[in-house]
Amino acid sequence: MSLPNLHFRRYGLILLLLIALPKLVQAGEPLPSWNDGPSKKSIIEFVQSVTDQTSKDFVKPAERIAVFELLFAFDEVKRTAAQHPEWKTTQPFKAVLENDHKALAATGMDGLLKIVGATHSGMTTEQFNDYAQTWLMQARHPKTGKPYTEMIFQPMLEMLDYLRSEGFKTYIVSGGDTGFMRAFAEKIYGIPPEQVIGTTFDTSYQFKDGNASIVRNPKVAHNDDGPGKPVSIDNIIGRRPILAFGNSDGDLQMLQWTAAGTGKRFMGLVHHTDAKREWAYDRQSQIGRLDKALDEARQRGWTVVDMATEWQRIYPADAGQPAQ
Amino acid sequence: MSLPNLHFRRYGLILLLLIALPKLVQAGEPLPSWNDGPSKKSIIEFVQSVTDQTSKDFVKPAERIAVFELLFAFDEVKRTAAQHPEWKTTQPFKAVLENDHKALAATGMDGLLKIVGATHSGMTTEQFNDYAQTWLMQARHPKTGKPYTEMIFQPMLEMLDYLRSEGFKTYIVSGGDTGFMRAFAEKIYGIPPEQVIGTTFDTSYQFKDGNASIVRNPKVAHNDDGPGKPVSIDNIIGRRPILAFGNSDGDLQMLQWTAAGTGKRFMGLVHHTDAKREWAYDRQSQIGRLDKALDEARQRGWTVVDMATEWQRIYPADAGQPAQ
Repeated sequence: MSLPNLHFRRYGLILLLLIALPKLVQAGEPLPSWNDGPSKKSIIEFVQSVTDQTSKDFVKPAERIAVFELLFAFDEVKRTAAQHPEWKTTQPFKAVLENDHKALAATGMDGLLKIVGATHSGMTTEQFNDYAQTWLMQARHPKTGKPYTEMIFQPMLEMLDYLRSEGFKTYIVSGGDTGFMRAFAEKIYGIPPEQVIGTTFDTSYQFKDGNASIVRNPKVAHNDDGPGKPVSIDNIIGRRPILAFGNSDGDLQMLQWTAAGTGKRFMGLVHHTDAKREWAYDRQSQIGRLDKALDEARQRGWTVVDMATEWQRIYPADAGQPAQ
Repeated sequence: MSLPNLHFRRYGLILLLLIALPKLVQAGEPLPSWNDGPSKKSIIEFVQSVTDQTSKDFVKPAERIAVFELLFAFDEVKRTAAQHPEWKTTQPFKAVLENDHKALAATGMDGLLKIVGATHSGMTTEQFNDYAQTWLMQARHPKTGKPYTEMIFQPMLEMLDYLRSEGFKTYIVSGGDTGFMRAFAEKIYGIPPEQVIGTTFDTSYQFKDGNASIVRNPKVAHNDDGPGKPVSIDNIIGRRPILAFGNSDGDLQMLQWTAAGTGKRFMGLVHHTDAKREWAYDRQSQIGRLDKALDEARQRGWTVVDMATEWQRIYPADAGQPAQ
């Protein structure tokens, strides 16, 4: 056998493995932590129809933009902080809350993350990133005792992986502070800083002693909630997503805007129905309320994920457990 | 020979070709329209040192962020519009200028693109995109008679291709209207909408008769000039670039901020020195002035590209021609 052929055989094998391996690993079954319910079925059907080149619904990879409200554990803190005055004496909440507890009590909807943002003005954005990473390493959820970095939803992680393996670009679009989310989004969700969109504070360029930096100011520049979500997606991504996933009324406009584009689209809501393994709330909740968006989703046939019956496990550390 | 082996041989060859081809095509020489001057040498040396895994200066692909001020042809219109009253009677300038010619005359620095933006409020961002694409197909540069889409710099196109082939993510960061630039950046520069950062107008979410859209308002939300550039890069990308290329004093803060990061960095300026093939201007120009940034570049050893001597050709349609 000639030398070139030998090279082709050897490299061919390695290359084939390199290319085929990721496909083989997930080939068994996408979304393994999802029960075989209507939501799993609708997600897989949507992905197959927009990625199949022979389908009338085919969407080229550059336009496969998917947006997610992903800060579930933080939302839960925001939602319940007002009902837990004892957190004022518990670190790390004390440090955060005591600075501006009045504002929290007064606004109700204004949350932990905004206070974190507002009380750390004067820092450079790089210092703030270090601060947020340190905070996250130490912080524990007051109810579960788990680090926040472990209170993320395994089924959503699988969905992000599945979409990316099918050529989607995944974004976080959340009411949380952008700088705060960027401190952990890449490590936890595999989402790089430039794909994190959130609430932002005004910043200034500072040039001092030959050193250039960006400094945070206390003024909110963009509130990424409700209509602020489609506005920031259009401003930063410049394309209408073809898939959007939310969990509260603050995501309604993002879902409506996604739905109003041409071609096949996917709109989803995570419904917190699992009081045993997580929390159950919707229409009556002061923070994280899911009311109007739930009605519109039902009426327009969007996907509503029932956590209690459709998710086999919630957190990555959980073993698979039967649904309620 | 067994069947699996046969498969490996056949697919191996195809895969090898698919992977090797882009490398082979450019393997001859990167940056062919650049003369072998100091700028070409410094670009290639920088790229090699940050992409070589054994180098102390190695930068992982996710952090290879490169930012460019790229709107040279539009800059030239902005720079000279005030000196050409006859453009008021020439389409498409007439339509643009007559709406707000007073503002142009009064501000000097305020440009064509901002007027385009400001006079098209009330449009949805998607309508504006259609408008900009139509305008660009019809518009000709008043001096050269060329379409604007052909008045882009071949050496910069080669540099963008070279960087992307080496794992860089390339961004436009420009004073131009973001929506306007997005209408052509992908087709002309291979840069997708989400990698275009510029001056933005305030927008609003609108939901009418079941249809959702984003509408442009006349108020400037962010002026992407001077200190506005590092501010928007930090806000939207969330990382400090390792390479920045500008062409005027409006790029100084972006270059300073890029320079102030840790590790190896590249700062470059295109110096418009070619009166014969393009335009020659720097310190005295009212618009597009290059003065302070030129001094700082010389002082700190940044790369200053001398168009007249370092570029073998300017526009893609030009045949290679000897430098002046």
